[in-house]
Amino acid sequence: MPTVNEMTREELRALYDAALSEYEKCKSAGLKLDMSRGKPGREQLDLSNDMLNMYIDPDETVMDGVEARNYGELMGLPACRRIFADLLGVKCEQVFIGGSASLNLMYDVIAKAYTHGLLHSEEKWAKLDKVKFICPAPGYDRHFTISQTFGMEMITVPLKDNGPDMDIIEELVKDPTVKGMWCVPKYSNPDGVVYSDEVIYRIANLKPAAPDFLLMWDNAYCVHEFEGDFVPFTNILEACRLAGNPDMVFEFASTSKITFPGAGVSCFCCSEANMDYMKKLWNAEIISYDKLNQLRHVKFFGSAAGVLDHMKRHASVLKPKFDIVLEALENEIAPLGIASWRKPKGGYFVSLYVMPGCAKRVHALCKEAGVNMTGAGATYPYKLDPQDSNLRIAPSFPPCEELAAAMQVLCLCIKLAALEKLLGLN
Amino acid sequence: MPTVNEMTREELRALYDAALSEYEKCKSAGLKLDMSRGKPGREQLDLSNDMLNMYIDPDETVMDGVEARNYGELMGLPACRRIFADLLGVKCEQVFIGGSASLNLMYDVIAKAYTHGLLHSEEKWAKLDKVKFICPAPGYDRHFTISQTFGMEMITVPLKDNGPDMDIIEELVKDPTVKGMWCVPKYSNPDGVVYSDEVIYRIANLKPAAPDFLLMWDNAYCVHEFEGDFVPFTNILEACRLAGNPDMVFEFASTSKITFPGAGVSCFCCSEANMDYMKKLWNAEIISYDKLNQLRHVKFFGSAAGVLDHMKRHASVLKPKFDIVLEALENEIAPLGIASWRKPKGGYFVSLYVMPGCAKRVHALCKEAGVNMTGAGATYPYKLDPQDSNLRIAPSFPPCEELAAAMQVLCLCIKLAALEKLLGLN
Repeated sequence: MPTVNEMTREELRALYDAALSEYEKCKSAGLKLDMSRGKPGREQLDLSNDMLNMYIDPDETVMDGVEARNYGELMGLPACRRIFADLLGVKCEQVFIGGSASLNLMYDVIAKAYTHGLLHSEEKWAKLDKVKFICPAPGYDRHFTISQTFGMEMITVPLKDNGPDMDIIEELVKDPTVKGMWCVPKYSNPDGVVYSDEVIYRIANLKPAAPDFLLMWDNAYCVHEFEGDFVPFTNILEACRLAGNPDMVFEFASTSKITFPGAGVSCFCCSEANMDYMKKLWNAEIISYDKLNQLRHVKFFGSAAGVLDHMKRHASVLKPKFDIVLEALENEIAPLGIASWRKPKGGYFVSLYVMPGCAKRVHALCKEAGVNMTGAGATYPYKLDPQDSNLRIAPSFPPCEELAAAMQVLCLCIKLAALEKLLGLN
Repeated sequence: MPTVNEMTREELRALYDAALSEYEKCKSAGLKLDMSRGKPGREQLDLSNDMLNMYIDPDETVMDGVEARNYGELMGLPACRRIFADLLGVKCEQVFIGGSASLNLMYDVIAKAYTHGLLHSEEKWAKLDKVKFICPAPGYDRHFTISQTFGMEMITVPLKDNGPDMDIIEELVKDPTVKGMWCVPKYSNPDGVVYSDEVIYRIANLKPAAPDFLLMWDNAYCVHEFEGDFVPFTNILEACRLAGNPDMVFEFASTSKITFPGAGVSCFCCSEANMDYMKKLWNAEIISYDKLNQLRHVKFFGSAAGVLDHMKRHASVLKPKFDIVLEALENEIAPLGIASWRKPKGGYFVSLYVMPGCAKRVHALCKEAGVNMTGAGATYPYKLDPQDSNLRIAPSFPPCEELAAAMQVLCLCIKLAALEKLLGLN
C-alpha cells in the first residue's frame, strides 16, 4: 500500500469513504471501551490475591522488634524498607515507607518545600514570587497537576529517545527561580523511554543556581518490564552524590502496579541528610504509615527477588496487550505513514503521535464511537500539546478482546482525522 | 491521716523520710515501666486479630460498584463512609476516608490553609504575617506540634470542667488574625472532660472576625467510653449549620484506638461546600486512600452498632487499668491533699495536677526510678505549663501488674516532690 504522500486525491477520498463507513458501523455497535488510564486489569489484580487472604499469626506481627499493629516506627517496617532498598540499589537508611500511593508522597515533598522549605532552601517557596519547574513532555499528567495546584510556572522541555533534552535543561537551571524537575526515568509515562546513562550523568551533574533545586525522580516503573528480563538501572542517589549533589534528589516508587493499586505501599528515597531533615518535619504529620500492609507485602514477596518473580507474572498478562496495540498500529497505520509511536519494553503506555493538529480530533472521534482515551494534550503542562499530536494509549485495563476492538476504532479514527486534514474536510 | 496542711514540720519530715526510703528501694529494683503514651496494650490489639486474618473472597472486593483493589473513589468506600457517618451522626456525603491516622488528615487540612487557603479565605495563610490559634490547655501535644511547625502563635485558654473557657474565646475571635481552635470535645486529652451542650452551643455560635476561622474538632474518643454505655454526642456539623457557620468546622475521627493504631482507618467530616472545595485540592494529591483496609473494617464491624459492641471489649480491658490508677491516687495521695485529678469515664488519660512548681520534679523522680511519664509541660502550647503542675498518666499500655508498680512509684514521687517543696528542701 502506498503512503498517503504517494496517493492521488481520489485515492485519499476512497480511503476516507471506506474508513468512514467502517467507523459508522462501529458507532452503531454502541461500544463502551476504556483505554484512558494506566490501571491494571482484573487478571493483574488476581495475581496478588494471596496477599488479600493472607493468614498472619498475631505472634508474627512483631518484626525487627516493631509491633506492626501498634503505633510507632515513623519510617516504616525495616524489612519493607530493605526490599525497596534492594530493588532500587539504595541503602536502607535512605528509604522511607509511605501509604498506598507515591503520588501522596510526591505532593507532600513539594508541599513541604512551600510551607517549610527544603534542606538547602534560603526561603520557603510560599514566600517566593515565582517558582519554575522543568517538565519534560510528553509526561505524566498528575505531576503537572501537582505543579499547577501550587501555582508553579511549568517549562516544557522535549523528551527525546534517551531522555529529556539536556542542552536546554543545562541552560534553564542557571535561572535561580527554576526550582526543580519532574522525571520518570525508566519507561517514562507515556513514551516508555528509558533515560540513557549519559542523560542520567548530565542530570546528576547539573549545576543549578537554586541551592534547593529538587529533582523529582518518579521511578514508577522501576521493575515494570513486560518484555525481557529486569534491566538494572542507575542508582540516582549515588550518581548525585558522586556529582557533589547528594541532596538534590528524591526518588519515588510504589507497589501500586505490583500488588494492588488501591492498597499498595509507597516509598521515597533520599540522602541521609535530607532524611534527617524530612523526618523532623514528618514527625509533626504522621506516627507511621500502615505497618500491617507493609508486613503483608514483606510476607508476600519475601525479598526483592520475590518482587521480580512476581513482575514476570504481570509481564505475561501485559505483553499480549501491548502486542495487540502495536500490531494494530503496525498493520493499519504504519503503511500509510500517518502516525508514529515508540515500542516500549516496559511501563504502562504506548505514546502515539498522530499528524500535527489531529490529536484532539482523533480523541473526539474515538469518544463518539464509545472509546475513551486519555484527553489529547493531557501529557503536556497546562494540557497544551504545541503540536496537538500526542495521544496516550493505556492498554492494561481492558480485556484483550475489548482492547482489540478499541484499537480497531482508534485506527479508523487516526485515518479519518488524517484524511480529513489532507483532503481539507475539517 | 491529716492533710499536709495540718501536719507539723516534724510530721512532714517523717513522712518524707519514709517516702524517700521506699523510693530508694524502688530505684534499686531497676524498674522499666512506661505510662507515657496513649498506646493500646497487647490485649487490646488482640481484640481485632480477626481482622488481621480475615478471609476476603476476591469476588467480594467490589463493594457498591467500587473495586477496592484498584485505583479510584477519592472519598473512600461508601460502606466505610456510612459507618463513620452513623457513628458521628453526620451525612455520608460529609465523610471523607483517609489513611491510618487522623493526625495526617488534620495536618493536611492546616497545610491546605497555608498553601491554598480554605473555602472562605481571602488569602493563603502562608501569605499572612501572623496566624493565631486558640489552644485549650491542657491539651493534645501533637495538635500543638502541628501549630508550631507552621509557625502559628498559640494562645493558651484554660480548659474547665465543661470545656474551654468560652468567655475568653468569644473575646479572642474578634481578632481577625485568630484563625482557628483545637478541640478534643469528648474525653479530652488529657483531662477526660466532655464539653457541655452549652459550651458546644457557644462554640458553634462564635462570630469570628476571620471569615476562614477553622474549628479543628478532633473527636478522637467519640466512642471510647470505658465506663457505662455509649453516650451520644452533639453533631457539631449540624450545630454549626444551625448557627449560620456551616463551613467553620472540620471533624476528625479514626479507628486507631478501635482496631489497630498501626493500621486503622481515619476520616474527616465537613459541610458539603467544604467537601467540594477540598475534593478539588485533594484530587491533586491522592487517588484514594487504602480501600482494602476500608473493606476489612467494613467486614469486621458490619455497622456502627458493631463498632459500639467492639468498644465494650476495649472497655473491659481499660476499666481495670483506670481503676488501678484512680485507686492508687485515692488511697495514697487524696488523704494528704497534695494533688488533684479528674475521674474520666472515657478516653485514654488521667490528668494529674500536682502542687504548683512540682510537675517537672515528679517527672524527673519517676524517670530516675525507671517510670517513663509524658514530659511535664507537654500538655501545654510550647510545652509551657504556667503552673508546672500538670502530668498526663496514660494507663493503657502497661499490663495491670506493671501499671500498679508504676503507680506506686508515681505516688511516692508526688509525695517526695510535695514534701521537698513544703520542707524547703529543693
